[in-house]
Amino acid sequence: MLLEVYGHGGDVKTASARFGMAAEKFIDLSANINPLGPPPGLLQKLREAMPDIVRYPDPGHRVLLSLLEERLRIRQDCLVIGNGAAENMALALLALKPERVGIIEPCFSEYETLSAQFGAKVSSVLGRAENNFHADPEEIVALIRDNDLVFIGQPNNPNGIQYGWNELCRFAEAAESYSTYLVVDEAFIDFIPEKDRVSLLGELHRYSRVILIRSMTKFYAIPGLRLGYAIAHPDLAAVMRGKQVTWSVNLLALLAGEFCLQAEQKYEDETITFIAKQRQWLREGLAGLGCQTWPGEANFLLVRLPEGWTAANMQKALGSKGILIRSCAMYNGLGERDVRIAVKDQICSDKLLEAMREVMGNRSN
Amino acid sequence: MLLEVYGHGGDVKTASARFGMAAEKFIDLSANINPLGPPPGLLQKLREAMPDIVRYPDPGHRVLLSLLEERLRIRQDCLVIGNGAAENMALALLALKPERVGIIEPCFSEYETLSAQFGAKVSSVLGRAENNFHADPEEIVALIRDNDLVFIGQPNNPNGIQYGWNELCRFAEAAESYSTYLVVDEAFIDFIPEKDRVSLLGELHRYSRVILIRSMTKFYAIPGLRLGYAIAHPDLAAVMRGKQVTWSVNLLALLAGEFCLQAEQKYEDETITFIAKQRQWLREGLAGLGCQTWPGEANFLLVRLPEGWTAANMQKALGSKGILIRSCAMYNGLGERDVRIAVKDQICSDKLLEAMREVMGNRSN
Repeated sequence: MLLEVYGHGGDVKTASARFGMAAEKFIDLSANINPLGPPPGLLQKLREAMPDIVRYPDPGHRVLLSLLEERLRIRQDCLVIGNGAAENMALALLALKPERVGIIEPCFSEYETLSAQFGAKVSSVLGRAENNFHADPEEIVALIRDNDLVFIGQPNNPNGIQYGWNELCRFAEAAESYSTYLVVDEAFIDFIPEKDRVSLLGELHRYSRVILIRSMTKFYAIPGLRLGYAIAHPDLAAVMRGKQVTWSVNLLALLAGEFCLQAEQKYEDETITFIAKQRQWLREGLAGLGCQTWPGEANFLLVRLPEGWTAANMQKALGSKGILIRSCAMYNGLGERDVRIAVKDQICSDKLLEAMREVMGNRSN
Repeated sequence: MLLEVYGHGGDVKTASARFGMAAEKFIDLSANINPLGPPPGLLQKLREAMPDIVRYPDPGHRVLLSLLEERLRIRQDCLVIGNGAAENMALALLALKPERVGIIEPCFSEYETLSAQFGAKVSSVLGRAENNFHADPEEIVALIRDNDLVFIGQPNNPNGIQYGWNELCRFAEAAESYSTYLVVDEAFIDFIPEKDRVSLLGELHRYSRVILIRSMTKFYAIPGLRLGYAIAHPDLAAVMRGKQVTWSVNLLALLAGEFCLQAEQKYEDETITFIAKQRQWLREGLAGLGCQTWPGEANFLLVRLPEGWTAANMQKALGSKGILIRSCAMYNGLGERDVRIAVKDQICSDKLLEAMREVMGNRSN
């Protein structure tokens, strides 16, 4: 049985029960969290703020909004602070009530899960491995034409690909002309060097139907706290906020977000450089073991294990050695040999590669 | 202008901007939080757990569920852990999709706000001051008959009243026979001595349409973290969970909940004794100033100021002295002289009474 009993990686509680090891002892490569950890000083700041939990969070998220306004150069009324990026996705669905939702598979499972939760019918097009998982732009335009709302990951999870600038603009134009909402999930975009990021952020004033959703928990390594935000036309942002439950974003998450946006630029630069270097190292190591990878740009790699191996048996073998990887066997468009592995530091990668070498040596294919 | 710009008390951020004083300096009697603070050791426990925020919360809330199962003697599949009690209310509305919601005014404003947010039409009956705010049970039964879902506060916010055992059972029976959902908001019930609590908890197996909602943030003084739960028939609990966004309850809230449920019984007993005594003290002091109060049983008092005073001018006058109270002028069934004041310790109550005496002395009625 796979570890993804709740449909996601990072479930150290299930792993702990399965492999009889304390949750914090695992090398968790099944969740895509910044290996450098939170910005220096954040944990201490939160420890000092602990007495503040006797008060309600600011229901208006006012300090964080003004910091994001400054950072993104976007008006506050275009922003929706969320209890994790997942809440922002749910708010988009609750506010815009699409009957038909389009997705580009393989992709983050919550697009489909949340759409089904809130009553939408989901259809999809496929990005194929032979085309580095880029779906045919014509098919995406047709998907936009035929649905009320389309999710697109940029970069996409679990394969790390980005669509190009011209393609993205074409999708946004199509969304306008077909009256479809385009939700661009940029949860991992901060990991990409600024010059390589392809985002509609700067052009958002041109599009009344585009919503960008960003996570602050992955890059700043605070998934336990939950924090994300959406950026959209003020009318869209307002209807999304209109579906939000008061105080849904907790006080420590707000405080952490405020701290992270004021952290030194150095932390962000170092993270990006570090990830690029470590991704290359991991890719080469995996290639040396006969695994196929794709040229993703995010802090994780989609990996196809050699013939004869399955995600399930590799996950089990590595799990018993204290290393967690994400099975991708359940994604449409992927197969039973596919896994997703987070890019961490070289020690983690080396431990993974060594463990895989052992596992693969101990069993014939 | 009132402080309740987001519709609630406890908004120290707005107060801070309005009165030019740091948020943590106020004596905040506008939010009903345990004056003894969190259980001893909780803040330290959370400080020590801070490195854990680099991991996702358990999406299955497994440890907290098993502790609640033990404490409440209720099966885990009857429980829904929520991101504050407010999320549980939202989940009930999203899952059960009532077209018509009934409320008993005056009551917690989120019943109406959330119902409107999720598309329900709200109607109400009134609990009248001359009857200690108990609405006529016949009218409540008619409300249950005429709506798809009815909210009832037990004890009710902002007046602290409870319905009796026979009344509650009658409402639950009516809910069964009219196929109406009855959502009993028990957010403040933990403050009431156990022998005086009137709860359907022990009879829940008899009712397939009753949902109890409880908060852990008020009694355990952790509103900044957000934590609540719902108790209902397994089928209801399952459809509610089906509308929940993955990881909506953050890791520190789960950890705090686990700690609180294992805290010494002494903390809970002391809180209850303390509140009863301080409530009496505060009531007498307010009566001495010519204010009317009602025999509520919770950790707050509904207060009618003497003729010539309004909630607005008293809130402003006290705010400039660093004391926050909750205006109740906007509640249906209450008037411009009504405020809600939290029961805190004697120092806070004395400061309030002294400040009110000054304010009222300085101005003629």
